[in-house]
Amino acid sequence: MTRVCVVGCGAIGSLFAAHLGTLDDVEVWAYDVARPHVDAMNATGLRVTGASEVLGRVAARTDPSEIPPCDLGIVATKSEHTAAAIQACAGVFADAAVASVQNGLGNEEAIAPAVPRVLRGTTLVAGAVTAPGVVRFDATGGTWLGPFEPKPARADEVALLADLVTRGGLPASALPDARGAQWTKLLFNAGTNAVGAVTGLTIGQVGSLPAVRRLAGQVIDEGRRVAAALGIEVDADPEAMIDDAVERAYAHRASMLQDVQARRRTEVEMLNGGIAAAGRGAGVPTPLNDALVALVQGIERSWLTDDRIVGEGHA
Amino acid sequence: MTRVCVVGCGAIGSLFAAHLGTLDDVEVWAYDVARPHVDAMNATGLRVTGASEVLGRVAARTDPSEIPPCDLGIVATKSEHTAAAIQACAGVFADAAVASVQNGLGNEEAIAPAVPRVLRGTTLVAGAVTAPGVVRFDATGGTWLGPFEPKPARADEVALLADLVTRGGLPASALPDARGAQWTKLLFNAGTNAVGAVTGLTIGQVGSLPAVRRLAGQVIDEGRRVAAALGIEVDADPEAMIDDAVERAYAHRASMLQDVQARRRTEVEMLNGGIAAAGRGAGVPTPLNDALVALVQGIERSWLTDDRIVGEGHA
Repeated sequence: MTRVCVVGCGAIGSLFAAHLGTLDDVEVWAYDVARPHVDAMNATGLRVTGASEVLGRVAARTDPSEIPPCDLGIVATKSEHTAAAIQACAGVFADAAVASVQNGLGNEEAIAPAVPRVLRGTTLVAGAVTAPGVVRFDATGGTWLGPFEPKPARADEVALLADLVTRGGLPASALPDARGAQWTKLLFNAGTNAVGAVTGLTIGQVGSLPAVRRLAGQVIDEGRRVAAALGIEVDADPEAMIDDAVERAYAHRASMLQDVQARRRTEVEMLNGGIAAAGRGAGVPTPLNDALVALVQGIERSWLTDDRIVGEGHA
Repeated sequence: MTRVCVVGCGAIGSLFAAHLGTLDDVEVWAYDVARPHVDAMNATGLRVTGASEVLGRVAARTDPSEIPPCDLGIVATKSEHTAAAIQACAGVFADAAVASVQNGLGNEEAIAPAVPRVLRGTTLVAGAVTAPGVVRFDATGGTWLGPFEPKPARADEVALLADLVTRGGLPASALPDARGAQWTKLLFNAGTNAVGAVTGLTIGQVGSLPAVRRLAGQVIDEGRRVAAALGIEVDADPEAMIDDAVERAYAHRASMLQDVQARRRTEVEMLNGGIAAAGRGAGVPTPLNDALVALVQGIERSWLTDDRIVGEGHA
C-alpha cells in the first residue's frame, strides 16, 4: 500500500486525487482549505465528470496534522500558496518524495526547503471544480515526472509515482530529466493562458482567431529563445499543442482566465514572468512576455480599492 | 453668425457643441442618432458638469435633412461611424470646411470624399455623457486644428474654427500643419487607451503603476520611431501628457475602457492599429502595438456568440 498526499484540491489536484483514489494499492490523502470540498470528498468520494467518469476514495483534511506520514506527495496549489502549504505538510512528507504538477517555473524551488526529495512535474490535464466533491475533466493529456536536480527524488520514486498515476487513468511518464517537458508546457501556457485571461477567450478561440493566435505564437517564440539559451530542449511543439487544444478542448477557459473571472490572483508571474526572469538571466529579451505580465498585473490591480478614485465603481 | 454642425454627440462632440453653444455669434447644430440625448439637448440645452459648468444652446437633429447648410463642421463620431455619418450630412456640408476631432489615424481620410474642405484636428478634452443632455467634463486640454493636406480647408476657416472654439471655452490653436499635434495625441492615446481598456485601470493608475507605465512608454516609443520615419515631428512629450493626466484626471477612464465596459466596438484599429499600419508602410516594426490590437480585438470577439461553445456563458 502506497500512501500519497495531494496538496491543494483545485481542478488539477482533484483530478490526480480522484484517479489515484480508484486504485486498490494506494491510500489517497488530501490537504485542502476549502471545507465544503473536503467534506464532500470524505462523505461521498471525489467525482470526475467529463473526459472520464470516475469516483475516487479520498481522505481529505483541512488540518495536515490529521494526515499520516506519506510516501509520495503531489503539490497542486496555486503557486502563491505553495510555500505555506508545504510547510504545513512538513510532517506528512518527513520521508517522502514530493512532486509539483503546478504551472510555470519556481514551484519545485518553493517545495524543496520543506521536504527531503522533490520531483519536477508537468501535466496537461485541465478542468474545473464545478461543485464540492465534483471536478469536471476538460482536457486530457500527459503528465511527465523527473527528479528535481538540486534535491532529487530517487529514480524508483519517480517510476512509482508515474506508474500509480498511469494506472489511475492519467498517462504519466518517468523521465531522467523533465525540464524539456516542463518548458514545453510552460511555453504552451505562456502563449495561451495570459492571452485568454486578458481577452476572455477560450483556448479554442485563442488558437483559432488569426491575430490572437499570431500573438500567442510570438510569445512562445520568445520563450523558445530563452530555453535555447539555457540549453533546455523543448520536447514537443507548443504550437501543435494549441492545435490539439483547439480540436479537443475548444471551450476550455484556461486557469488564468478562471482566476480573472473569479478575481483571484493569477499565476502570471510563474508563467510569462518565469520566462521573463529566465530571459533576464540568460540575456534574452522577452518584451511580449513582459507586456502580458504587466497587463495581467494591471487587471489584478484594478480590483483593489484606490483612494484616489472617489465616487466611482471599479471596473 | 456662423453656423457650425457637430456630427456625433458622444462625450467629445457634446463638449464642443455645448461650449460653442454659449457664443452669441454661433448657431450650433448637432446630428446624433441617440434620440433621448437629442431630445434633451433641444428641450433644456446641453449641460456640461465637472471641469466647467456651462449650458449651451444646441439645435439637435436625428435627421440631417432638418439641418440647414453650415459653414463649419466638427466630426466626433466613433471612427467606425464616420463614413456613414458624413455621407448623411453631405447636404449640410455642401460648402463647408469640416474638422475631425476624433481619435487616431484615418478619420480625415474618411471625411474627405463627402465634403469640399477638411481640417485635421486633435483634442485633449475628455469626458463622458452621464445622462441625456448632460456631459461630464473630465479632462481639459488643448485642441489643434490645421488643413488636411489632400483636401485642405482655407487658412481663414482654420483660424475661424479655432477662434470660435477658444472663445467658447476650449483653448484651440490654428496650425499650418497639425500632424505633429495629431501624432502627439495619438502616441499618448496609444500608450494609455488600450492598456487601460485591457486592464480596467484609470488613466491615473496606468500612469502610476510602474510595470504598466513602463509598457505604456514602450508602446509610445514604437510610435515615436514610426513618426520619425515618416518625418513627422511630435510637438510635445506624450510621457509628460501622462504625468499631467495622473495629476489632473487620475480617475478618468479612457474612452476605450468605456467602450469595453459597455461592450461597444473600440477604436483600437485607428489608434494602435493606425501606428502599426503606418509602421508597416515605413518599415518600422511595432510588435507591442500589434499585440494590443490583437488583445483588444480578442476582447471584442469574446462578446460574440461562438457556436463551438455550448452550454457556457460568455466571459
